[in-house]
Amino acid sequence: MSKFLEAINFDEKFSRLSEYWKPKIIAQMNDYHFKITKLQGEFVWHKHDDTDEVFIVLEGEMSIAFQEGAVILKQGEMFVVPKGLEHKPIAKDECKVMLVEPAGTINTGDAGGEMTAEDNVWI
Amino acid sequence: MSKFLEAINFDEKFSRLSEYWKPKIIAQMNDYHFKITKLQGEFVWHKHDDTDEVFIVLEGEMSIAFQEGAVILKQGEMFVVPKGLEHKPIAKDECKVMLVEPAGTINTGDAGGEMTAEDNVWI
Repeated sequence: MSKFLEAINFDEKFSRLSEYWKPKIIAQMNDYHFKITKLQGEFVWHKHDDTDEVFIVLEGEMSIAFQEGAVILKQGEMFVVPKGLEHKPIAKDECKVMLVEPAGTINTGDAGGEMTAEDNVWI
Repeated sequence: MSKFLEAINFDEKFSRLSEYWKPKIIAQMNDYHFKITKLQGEFVWHKHDDTDEVFIVLEGEMSIAFQEGAVILKQGEMFVVPKGLEHKPIAKDECKVMLVEPAGTINTGDAGGEMTAEDNVWI
């Protein structure tokens, strides 16, 4: 069977991901990337001025803080963070997440800083 | 808590979906739709000339037939069908799937026919 015909398995991808808060690309659809990331602790407040951002929880639980409150996301749930809206992802315990966003989207958005991950890294 | 701050729960969405092969929209990110659909049996051969198409298996097992072979997708796996490539989704037993594709993408692509679902229906 050619490589082309292999499914992308989330568990297999996560087995090779060690760092928290460093999204890695697992698939591309048109000019969008599907990334996996492990969260634990608190991220930085930031926003993405040019795009919505999708969070899909594959394992565990997280929340996304907004100025007006927080949304809680459990396994089997997703949320679309609207373009331009300040938010801060938080996970008390380890949480495995898939992100969907345009290729080139930076994890810390407009905020920058030490939690900024290298862009365009596949796993 | 405002409606804005509610997660989208896949089980809750599927609990209101009865028909097979009729994708319903559960979320929008920029100009892309996230749709859920239940598969059982064989779909029609078709292609999407303008876009890739993502399949994420949430429960069960399916395959996608291509001219050169088939890819098998189980729960926790995804696949990106390349733009313009003829394919036919198949599920021996009921399979729950999330699709990601541009808003306006028709389920039967270039093929049309009786399995064509109404576009732009939210659940």
